[in-house]
Amino acid sequence: MNIPEGFLFSAISCGIRRKDRLDLGFILCQDKATSAGVFTKNTVKAVPVIIGKRHIKERFARAIIVNSGVANACTGSEGFLGAEKILAELSNLLRIKKEEILPASTGVIGEPLPVEKIIPKLPDLIQGLSPENYTDFARAIMTTDTFPKVVLKQTKNDIVILGIAKGAGMIAPNMATMLGFVLTDGRIEKEDLQKLLNKAVDESFNKITVDGDMSTNDTVYALASNRKEIKDWKEFETYFTEVCRELARMIVRDGEGASKVIKVIVKGAKTKREAEILARAVAESPLVKTAFYGADLNWGRIYSALGKTQIPFDPEEIEIYLNNIPWVRNFKVEAEEEVLRKEMAKEDVEILIKLKRGKQSSWIMTCDLTEEYIKINASYRS
Amino acid sequence: MNIPEGFLFSAISCGIRRKDRLDLGFILCQDKATSAGVFTKNTVKAVPVIIGKRHIKERFARAIIVNSGVANACTGSEGFLGAEKILAELSNLLRIKKEEILPASTGVIGEPLPVEKIIPKLPDLIQGLSPENYTDFARAIMTTDTFPKVVLKQTKNDIVILGIAKGAGMIAPNMATMLGFVLTDGRIEKEDLQKLLNKAVDESFNKITVDGDMSTNDTVYALASNRKEIKDWKEFETYFTEVCRELARMIVRDGEGASKVIKVIVKGAKTKREAEILARAVAESPLVKTAFYGADLNWGRIYSALGKTQIPFDPEEIEIYLNNIPWVRNFKVEAEEEVLRKEMAKEDVEILIKLKRGKQSSWIMTCDLTEEYIKINASYRS
Repeated sequence: MNIPEGFLFSAISCGIRRKDRLDLGFILCQDKATSAGVFTKNTVKAVPVIIGKRHIKERFARAIIVNSGVANACTGSEGFLGAEKILAELSNLLRIKKEEILPASTGVIGEPLPVEKIIPKLPDLIQGLSPENYTDFARAIMTTDTFPKVVLKQTKNDIVILGIAKGAGMIAPNMATMLGFVLTDGRIEKEDLQKLLNKAVDESFNKITVDGDMSTNDTVYALASNRKEIKDWKEFETYFTEVCRELARMIVRDGEGASKVIKVIVKGAKTKREAEILARAVAESPLVKTAFYGADLNWGRIYSALGKTQIPFDPEEIEIYLNNIPWVRNFKVEAEEEVLRKEMAKEDVEILIKLKRGKQSSWIMTCDLTEEYIKINASYRS
Repeated sequence: MNIPEGFLFSAISCGIRRKDRLDLGFILCQDKATSAGVFTKNTVKAVPVIIGKRHIKERFARAIIVNSGVANACTGSEGFLGAEKILAELSNLLRIKKEEILPASTGVIGEPLPVEKIIPKLPDLIQGLSPENYTDFARAIMTTDTFPKVVLKQTKNDIVILGIAKGAGMIAPNMATMLGFVLTDGRIEKEDLQKLLNKAVDESFNKITVDGDMSTNDTVYALASNRKEIKDWKEFETYFTEVCRELARMIVRDGEGASKVIKVIVKGAKTKREAEILARAVAESPLVKTAFYGADLNWGRIYSALGKTQIPFDPEEIEIYLNNIPWVRNFKVEAEEEVLRKEMAKEDVEILIKLKRGKQSSWIMTCDLTEEYIKINASYRS
């Protein structure tokens, strides 16, 4: 499959934190691209988020630059000067407006961006631009990710959508939650692209949680090179959202130390918000997550997690299904322990929780909590 | 030191979940005791919580019965019948009102209370009553606890207060959070005891969090045998609260898999509620907790955890202190890495976060998150 027309990619190694690994990625759109962005709601915003929020207001964008290794968050005015210097240099080299370059960073908070390592390498970065290098770009933005996250789709009307993301921890359903880049060659107005991105993010990246933490750097950018007319908007919307969904699923699958993906669905809630709160309480309970890791059929922890929301449901009315097999009803286990244990041991587990309070439903995706998560995070900086 | 006058204790092994371990504890007050109780706010309430909330309305109480092994939660009408049967039998044997016996349970949710194992042992339980057996009682109520939790204090006016608790996981600052029993020989009116208990719980058990989960069984009972006049109420209040505080600290110290106790203090917030939310966000962040476990000086995670509350503070204004040593100010590390690392490696760590938004402060106590927590919780039932 071809990638969307009009985009070039490049990735190089600057030794930002470690030697000999790709840590600077670049996307250039050959045309003036329509742009949209969604950013973290964390009060502590990284420098690239603050700059990105300003630059996204421009009618068009031409490029995206992303570094891994350091987040450029909590770096104060020094962090700003550094980022601006890099953008100015790129603007100079490419003869494009500085405001048409969108920045993103990911990595350790509080460490300065090593501008002196990055600036001299920018000519190499530009030199390396090619339509093929998108997988290198995907690799350059990784931190604790164990695999690059790329999704490529083509609608029946030949519009191509390419999604690239990074994220493995500090993932919470409270806006963007990671770095994501969605590129298409369809022709779209800025307002429509922003609306579409908001909606797609809500149905994908905002529906995943790894550890309930929300990053200072979460950003999703969408660019459209406007090469092709979108004849079927509905179809395009579906594909666009699906690209985001698949990336979101990859992030959960790659959740730090995760051994399985758990989808928690709540049905029969009074309001959508109530369904969301209940699903999230289960998905974020460390006791539920560790039980799933151990394939321990400890359903009481699900009830307890639901109950800590203090939503006044009747516990006896609840029904729980595991991969569509009736699990608990009226506080009684409904299936053979062996059958349930086999389901629980699978890599993809779906818990459906049915209430009898109303007709609203919601879902959220998470992963289990393992010793490996602790190992990864106990010494992330070292 | 003597224990409070008027109380007898007993503990036996019924084989509720495992053989040959104490799993049923009993406290008898020789007089009509003034009683007070605080219970979980979880929507899913265990049978003993529902019964306890009813029985605590009686003017007096005479006894407390506690089992470990099963929680008697999510057990429906069968669970009620079982608990009532045990209470009726005890009432019969002791010739005290059933409603003057306060029940509590702790253990696995959803498994039935093995009434047939407990009833025949009740005569032994009563036979064993003595003032000395309070440590056996403390042992009988343990689940994943690694040590019994007992605090004994005597005021200068000779009022004795004995506190016994259990709890190591599923601990969150959202009411009681574990099982706790505070006994005194002071003379107190019911309303005063309830007020005192509420206040003490707020300043102790409600200030700790291990994993953010809230149990279905959390209960704190206070009994006063009314043997001695309390001459100095202020002094008594201080001691009573201190007993609860020390028990709370023990619970955090015994947090599942914990290697250290972390106290998070927030000062300079606009409101008390704001200070609480900020302190809790830091204390419950898995990324902060694992960093502390690894003695990783990753202060960015503290900023990120504060920021996810979306409280609009200015990140640059924040100051962080580690065991009273200035750690971060204006995004800059203020002390030698070696000095900080040594503090971080201690068993007791205090993080003070100073904002410049107002004059309100709050604190919360938690523990670090280790591989051991995962091991304990991945196969709790087995």
